[in-house]
Amino acid sequence: MGNRLYVSLVHHPVIDKNGETIASAITNLDLHDIARVCRTYGVGGYYVITPLEDQADLVTRIVDHWTTGPGGSYNPKRRQALELVKVKGSFEEALDDITAVEGCRPKTVVTTARRDRGNLTCHRLQQMLDDGMPVVLAFGTAWGLTGDFMTTADYTLDPLTGPGHYNHMSVRSAVAIILDRLLRNT
Amino acid sequence: MGNRLYVSLVHHPVIDKNGETIASAITNLDLHDIARVCRTYGVGGYYVITPLEDQADLVTRIVDHWTTGPGGSYNPKRRQALELVKVKGSFEEALDDITAVEGCRPKTVVTTARRDRGNLTCHRLQQMLDDGMPVVLAFGTAWGLTGDFMTTADYTLDPLTGPGHYNHMSVRSAVAIILDRLLRNT
Repeated sequence: MGNRLYVSLVHHPVIDKNGETIASAITNLDLHDIARVCRTYGVGGYYVITPLEDQADLVTRIVDHWTTGPGGSYNPKRRQALELVKVKGSFEEALDDITAVEGCRPKTVVTTARRDRGNLTCHRLQQMLDDGMPVVLAFGTAWGLTGDFMTTADYTLDPLTGPGHYNHMSVRSAVAIILDRLLRNT
Repeated sequence: MGNRLYVSLVHHPVIDKNGETIASAITNLDLHDIARVCRTYGVGGYYVITPLEDQADLVTRIVDHWTTGPGGSYNPKRRQALELVKVKGSFEEALDDITAVEGCRPKTVVTTARRDRGNLTCHRLQQMLDDGMPVVLAFGTAWGLTGDFMTTADYTLDPLTGPGHYNHMSVRSAVAIILDRLLRNT
């Protein structure tokens, strides 16, 4: 059921420490870690969103190295993961791409660490996927997705919480945990 | 219940791509990502294991920067996470440290991506933690813990699996998912 779920990692529009809207820089391990988790759980595609051309070129060079370049023969497992990566200039472009594949527009689900925002549980989202609904999850880099971006989404996933008040995980960790909650076997 | 669970990230003894025993290099994001997840889920401590003095010094410098150094005031949330990190020269030293805190030797649980090795489910381990048993999880860097190391452990946790055969996640992702399975609220 995971192949109608898509993951997007948004580098713009996100906010910095002071709440200003920025385009964040690509982090190499975001590409690898998230692609490997997406491949493990059978996700349909992993969209890396950046409007900056030099950053998009960087993603393309890294992905090419591990897919069609020497990395692919050195480590075929890494190739299988990185093949899931597509780089797009905006979230709308990713939506158009998924719509073309699925034949209908996917539901959009944004994620946040803020406790007052969620209106969708992992359990309910799991049911939507079980029902065969195409869904794209949007994860923000830096200090998270902008408020304007979040209001355009169909749903906001409840934040991950532990036993205490601390919930400042990396986006890499959040993607891993959410995909496991949604798509684990048992 | 998480505060009697300890996480250790082992850089020796682990194997390389060819199955040779090595001491792997420290990865900066392993310190940050895993410490942040440990703090989120209330883990008792995060042990970074390396016998290489220069690598141990590197860990100490990074941790000091984010705890007692300028990073701590720049980002107090990062300080709270990195405060969990202790660097030790061997897994035995970490065991001694935990034994001194807990008053008894913790159960040792090794992790692996190999499907034929596990003899403990996450559910059973969760019950052990509910019963108040101190436990230390050992995660291998590079291509994983050596066979000799694994045979000395009390248990081997069942590997994480998705719907297919691919399960080549980063150790950062594996730690995040396993702690969520063991210690999530719901």
